[in-house]
Amino acid sequence: MSKFLNERYRKLESYTPGEQPKDTVLTKLNTNESPYPPGPKVLEAINSREAANLRLYSDPECAGLKETLAKQYGMTKNNIYVSNGSDDILNFAFMAFAGGRTEVLFPEISYGFYQVFADLYNLKYTKVPLKEDFSIDPKDYVCQNKMIVIANPNAPTGKALSLYEIEEIVRTNPENVVLIDEAYVDFGAESAVELVHKYENLLVVQTFSKSRSMAGARLGFAIASEGLIADLEKIKFSTNPYNVNRLTCAAGIAAIEENDYYRENCRKIVETRSYTAEKLVELGFKVVPSKANFLFTKCEKMDGGELYQKLREKGILIRHFDSEKISQYNRITIGTREEMDLLLGAIEEVIG
Amino acid sequence: MSKFLNERYRKLESYTPGEQPKDTVLTKLNTNESPYPPGPKVLEAINSREAANLRLYSDPECAGLKETLAKQYGMTKNNIYVSNGSDDILNFAFMAFAGGRTEVLFPEISYGFYQVFADLYNLKYTKVPLKEDFSIDPKDYVCQNKMIVIANPNAPTGKALSLYEIEEIVRTNPENVVLIDEAYVDFGAESAVELVHKYENLLVVQTFSKSRSMAGARLGFAIASEGLIADLEKIKFSTNPYNVNRLTCAAGIAAIEENDYYRENCRKIVETRSYTAEKLVELGFKVVPSKANFLFTKCEKMDGGELYQKLREKGILIRHFDSEKISQYNRITIGTREEMDLLLGAIEEVIG
Repeated sequence: MSKFLNERYRKLESYTPGEQPKDTVLTKLNTNESPYPPGPKVLEAINSREAANLRLYSDPECAGLKETLAKQYGMTKNNIYVSNGSDDILNFAFMAFAGGRTEVLFPEISYGFYQVFADLYNLKYTKVPLKEDFSIDPKDYVCQNKMIVIANPNAPTGKALSLYEIEEIVRTNPENVVLIDEAYVDFGAESAVELVHKYENLLVVQTFSKSRSMAGARLGFAIASEGLIADLEKIKFSTNPYNVNRLTCAAGIAAIEENDYYRENCRKIVETRSYTAEKLVELGFKVVPSKANFLFTKCEKMDGGELYQKLREKGILIRHFDSEKISQYNRITIGTREEMDLLLGAIEEVIG
Repeated sequence: MSKFLNERYRKLESYTPGEQPKDTVLTKLNTNESPYPPGPKVLEAINSREAANLRLYSDPECAGLKETLAKQYGMTKNNIYVSNGSDDILNFAFMAFAGGRTEVLFPEISYGFYQVFADLYNLKYTKVPLKEDFSIDPKDYVCQNKMIVIANPNAPTGKALSLYEIEEIVRTNPENVVLIDEAYVDFGAESAVELVHKYENLLVVQTFSKSRSMAGARLGFAIASEGLIADLEKIKFSTNPYNVNRLTCAAGIAAIEENDYYRENCRKIVETRSYTAEKLVELGFKVVPSKANFLFTKCEKMDGGELYQKLREKGILIRHFDSEKISQYNRITIGTREEMDLLLGAIEEVIG
């Protein structure tokens, strides 16, 4: 830290992303990436002809990508916002829609970045405890008159609220933005996108990083009423107008055009998730039922941190969180069947 | 605008980027892109093997790219920050290094985004008028005890300060960050990078968008003392840790490795700039001497806005700014010799 840093950021605790190992790890199951590569159309879209066009700025409106997404989700272009990964959208949403008299509410155990954004903008916020079984109690969010941020399915638990429960939260907080972070929605939860036609305060955030195999391309998008999208655009054009690069834009369009490929990948991942959950239970693990591409699970025979470490030594990376209430658990990304068998074999060896 | 937008942003005027035309424009000379494509190593780096890796997150540390840049500029990795275009760095710098008691000083005629950032963060700022000949008077920035932001060469004028003048500004404002925005430095100005070894308050910002033909890849970087870089990293890890995507990262490394190619392009552009300036003078234009890849020029026979419009109708796009003091001028990006001949021919026709 330099002496020049504005004092309001001096005590800020940044987000700690999952490890992106530089050494060779046999099996990387720690940051919920897809085990499958992007589809053939994306691979075609990334080529040296497109690279030659890099001399030109990308379209700051991202019109082509927005139109493709709008068509896919039955919206108009003005209901779509695209960004350099969905973290960028979350950042702008905390910046734009809270502060002043508007407080923020989000689950105590959820995506760790929510608290970082709230601290960054010096917001008043409340972290709502989960129920004993790690589920969100929708009653805690009904009629709160606060900005509400919910990951659905939630991370790192994998548990989801129903569309009915989400609608109750959106409907009963009409004076505030309700942000539903659907990073993992394609693995079995119900999306709230259709509610955008009914509620001007609903902001649905999705990403190409998980179900669409493009974590490394950095592409997130939001679907919401035209007013909310205009607000996000205003922040974007006041910070970084060309926020999505040319290749990512082209890859995004190509991916939407081959949606069936990604849907089939999701189906395979859901199948592998069931298989893995079953095997973990057989090995004596407690497994939280998951609607996401990961499992939140507790080894009854070994401390969560120790299991993480022992698997790390065997070249298998899973995610462990230090925070007290979940330190006995680990979050395991669903890879291919082969990767999960490797994991399960390693676990058997480790817990003896 | 929705009713949900925080009131502090309601009156904010966003930045207006130069037009990125969707229709066919014969000659695009409005946003200072390079007329030359990225080099062969970049084209090689963007391929379907790399695209297949998009399923994995990029390295949030961007270690490989930082090391390559550090080597190129005689720095260590801890002196380098990389981002999704240099606007991202400017944004973070205004956010991190001003505010509270720290006011900001920048030239009245310069990159229009500086004022947007200052408004966004509700900063106290002063816009310092240029001299009659559009040059910056370094005396205005010496011993000011404010954060100082100077584009060198300046845009849209193309005029540059000497390294000696920059050093005086940096040296005499030791309690504040002096940000030198060197987006156009490779076309003939002196870089302040070497001063980073001497001054902890100097933040030099550069980009791959101009001299390195990668506007569409979105890659900017900063060179500064370790403290300032750590501050920028803190803001990044509190907003969008994976800010540079995989393909851009690979392209950036490849571009640095073929630096000679870009240096040769800069030489050609400087040559074409001299040629174009000479011809414009012959056509009765006033041309501001430029150290950048554009010319700031005034047609003595026709209003600046009208010339812009007439050339637009002929499929040639140049940049016109409405602000009063420069509304008689236009900014013309230096393209290839052929593009400039096309422009000069069109001008002759238009002004008759």
